[in-house]
Amino acid sequence: MRADPSEFAVLRTAACRANVELARRGLARFTFGNASAIDRELGVVAIKPSGVPYDDLTPESMVVVELGGGGKVVDGSLRPSSDLATHLELYRAFGAIGGVVHTHSHYATVWAQAQREIPCFGTTHADYFHGPVPVTAHLESLEITQDYEANTGRAIVRRFERLGLDPLRMPACLVAGHASFCWGASVARAVEVANLLEDVARMAYDTVTLNAAADPIPAPLLDKHFLRKHGPEAYYGQERRRSDD
Amino acid sequence: MRADPSEFAVLRTAACRANVELARRGLARFTFGNASAIDRELGVVAIKPSGVPYDDLTPESMVVVELGGGGKVVDGSLRPSSDLATHLELYRAFGAIGGVVHTHSHYATVWAQAQREIPCFGTTHADYFHGPVPVTAHLESLEITQDYEANTGRAIVRRFERLGLDPLRMPACLVAGHASFCWGASVARAVEVANLLEDVARMAYDTVTLNAAADPIPAPLLDKHFLRKHGPEAYYGQERRRSDD
Amino acid sequence: MRADPSEFAVLRTAACRANVELARRGLARFTFGNASAIDRELGVVAIKPSGVPYDDLTPESMVVVELGGGGKVVDGSLRPSSDLATHLELYRAFGAIGGVVHTHSHYATVWAQAQREIPCFGTTHADYFHGPVPVTAHLESLEITQDYEANTGRAIVRRFERLGLDPLRMPACLVAGHASFCWGASVARAVEVANLLEDVARMAYDTVTLNAAADPIPAPLLDKHFLRKHGPEAYYGQERRRSDD
Amino acid sequence: MRADPSEFAVLRTAACRANVELARRGLARFTFGNASAIDRELGVVAIKPSGVPYDDLTPESMVVVELGGGGKVVDGSLRPSSDLATHLELYRAFGAIGGVVHTHSHYATVWAQAQREIPCFGTTHADYFHGPVPVTAHLESLEITQDYEANTGRAIVRRFERLGLDPLRMPACLVAGHASFCWGASVARAVEVANLLEDVARMAYDTVTLNAAADPIPAPLLDKHFLRKHGPEAYYGQERRRSDD
Repeated sequence: MRADPSEFAVLRTAACRANVELARRGLARFTFGNASAIDRELGVVAIKPSGVPYDDLTPESMVVVELGGGGKVVDGSLRPSSDLATHLELYRAFGAIGGVVHTHSHYATVWAQAQREIPCFGTTHADYFHGPVPVTAHLESLEITQDYEANTGRAIVRRFERLGLDPLRMPACLVAGHASFCWGASVARAVEVANLLEDVARMAYDTVTLNAAADPIPAPLLDKHFLRKHGPEAYYGQERRRSDD
Repeated sequence: MRADPSEFAVLRTAACRANVELARRGLARFTFGNASAIDRELGVVAIKPSGVPYDDLTPESMVVVELGGGGKVVDGSLRPSSDLATHLELYRAFGAIGGVVHTHSHYATVWAQAQREIPCFGTTHADYFHGPVPVTAHLESLEITQDYEANTGRAIVRRFERLGLDPLRMPACLVAGHASFCWGASVARAVEVANLLEDVARMAYDTVTLNAAADPIPAPLLDKHFLRKHGPEAYYGQERRRSDD
Repeated sequence: MRADPSEFAVLRTAACRANVELARRGLARFTFGNASAIDRELGVVAIKPSGVPYDDLTPESMVVVELGGGGKVVDGSLRPSSDLATHLELYRAFGAIGGVVHTHSHYATVWAQAQREIPCFGTTHADYFHGPVPVTAHLESLEITQDYEANTGRAIVRRFERLGLDPLRMPACLVAGHASFCWGASVARAVEVANLLEDVARMAYDTVTLNAAADPIPAPLLDKHFLRKHGPEAYYGQERRRSDD
Repeated sequence: MRADPSEFAVLRTAACRANVELARRGLARFTFGNASAIDRELGVVAIKPSGVPYDDLTPESMVVVELGGGGKVVDGSLRPSSDLATHLELYRAFGAIGGVVHTHSHYATVWAQAQREIPCFGTTHADYFHGPVPVTAHLESLEITQDYEANTGRAIVRRFERLGLDPLRMPACLVAGHASFCWGASVARAVEVANLLEDVARMAYDTVTLNAAADPIPAPLLDKHFLRKHGPEAYYGQERRRSDD
């Protein structure tokens, strides 16, 4: 499938806004973070250009690449984010997601560096993540030296498969020794998830340093809070919610 | 008792201001928090609508419900906060309070998640809370699956009854694995309490991580500070203070 | 000695500025903090009025009291800070100080609540405080119930006498279970000290939570840094410094 | 070599901007921090004047000193930073660096006070520092009482020699009980390094307090991230990068 570049305007704008928002919310310092959006009909992904400051981003500077074909650039004059291949692996494995966000936000990164999943200690967490936020294993040496970024995505997917997780009920994963990837039905939603993850990660950090033996909340409370916001019987907010919003 | 909606203007304005103030002071991030005010003569409560961003709130958007009768909406076109039933339980059990605030403010939530009461480590705490800030037990499974929000309020009330606490001398409670509820003679005062609780919770967190064996202050010092601000012999400020202000 | 109120203008202005500055620098939240300045020739102290918000302070609202005579108000229509008697004890015992500041700034208060002196872990500390910042013992019950605020000042003075400390080389003390008092040759300097104390207290907190066995810096390094800024051989800055500036 | 003062304008401006930037980024509070830039052709260094507030700095207020000859002032009317001799030692030993920055930024100082090197716990760190950030030993008493500032620089150089470190791959060092020194090909780059060091130090602090047994990342991951940004095969950003940029 070969798309006409004039069709990419909406996708470019959504991806650009999400990247700018990452910086504005303090989730991406320096150039540590990138967001992408997918158009599954056109089979393309728009992603941040590599190493460009957030203040300089415009919709035109986004790089549009093929979902298939090894991520070949189909529109745009800059080099895509070095993390592109990780994004592509997630889009391929998680068919329901519309946007991916990678940040080194402080507390999420701290849990990733400590190589610990984030336990569900409270209802703030349960409102958005249906259980502990998982962490990958460290990559093997060969996975690092060859095809590193794609292997990072594969490590996330493997972890989700092993734990039997639904990516829309668990819209985030920590990568050991690295940072987090988040996603959602849209890239705007993925930014919101990244923000919530940071908040929840900070609360969990302080909880466990206050009480190393703190228990996760009971399963019925986890279900109650997640489902009152996201299930078919949701009663939070002013309308029935979709499970991913 | 059936009130005329034109009588709700003052109550709506007070509730709206309190909700806006929660966000302005950084006590409620995202939509984690809500405030309500009661008019005991009219028998009605004005509360935040569910899931509406703080920036969009107006006095007209507040939802007015009956204190009795299961919290039936008597005025307003939106759905009330999903935590309404918790507020109503508190108003019914604590007859002297005029406003209730629920926030997931960071440090108060951390103590709730760690399932620990907040010891009174200093005079900052003693100036406003007459002893350790209590924490509820976790709810039983049935209390979660049926009538969850009302049961949350009942767990607070039970805790206060067991400890023999006066709600105006201890204007806050932590809910295990969830967050805090605060109250006061007015909803404006309840917001102030929520802010002070967050401050005191942060100090206590750092105190106990610095010295796990730190002692609470002696009882005479607790009484001295609480009563110089709130007792009949209060001498702080420019006038005799009421015990709740 | 009875002074003419027209002579208090400079003192009132200095005290007012210092109180406003406490709030502006984030050292005093809510109404937790007060500053005073002394005119030793006139034998009077100007101090913050009790319970008045920092935004409402003016030079005229400062309360001028006698250093002797039990702190009798000699000029001003408001009630003085409830901590007045503590300030007066410090002025009486430490003849070289010109201003006193009391704050519940976060980290200094945390050390006071943990009942630990602040060790000198680095040169930032040594640049301003010549050794560990001391902490008082808890007051006895009778000292709390009778003449509490004066006894707080006496506890500080006793601690300095026992440790043989020079108040200009150690311009701060923690009060157990309460917070800090700071001072200096002027009240403006006392505010600066309170700010530095908070900074140093935060660094020390994170140092000891990172390494519980961290050693204080060696005595020669403590002397080197303190004296290159404050001793007769000081060589920091653009001129020879006085020991308290 | 004796340079004409008119040749120092560019150097003065670069040094001034870097000092102002230290304060603007929150890396230097009070007067804790200074930056210098070198012109190796002219054999001179421009450095912050001692004790002058950052807001008052201008290019003209920078002090220009000789690299050789004991740091004699060759242009400028103010006294140079008391840390000048440390800067000069670093310029003499590390021939490829163009700027030096000294700050007491919070978390870097905490690691220095705890006398611990900063382990490389994640890719954020690996992107900029090729391994753990080293810490010096404490100076001997004689090194403190005589020629203290030069000995501080020598302690850094000795540490780098013992560990066989390349100053452009490890552009920072902690000084035990003191704070950090950073450097780079330019003084602007040294400021960036100081900012990154603070960020990485904060992440490492929270990592190790969350999991005292956290492992550093594997060597292949360290190399991968450092070299994808800085090596001859770098593929991050929009152009091939120099190893120091």
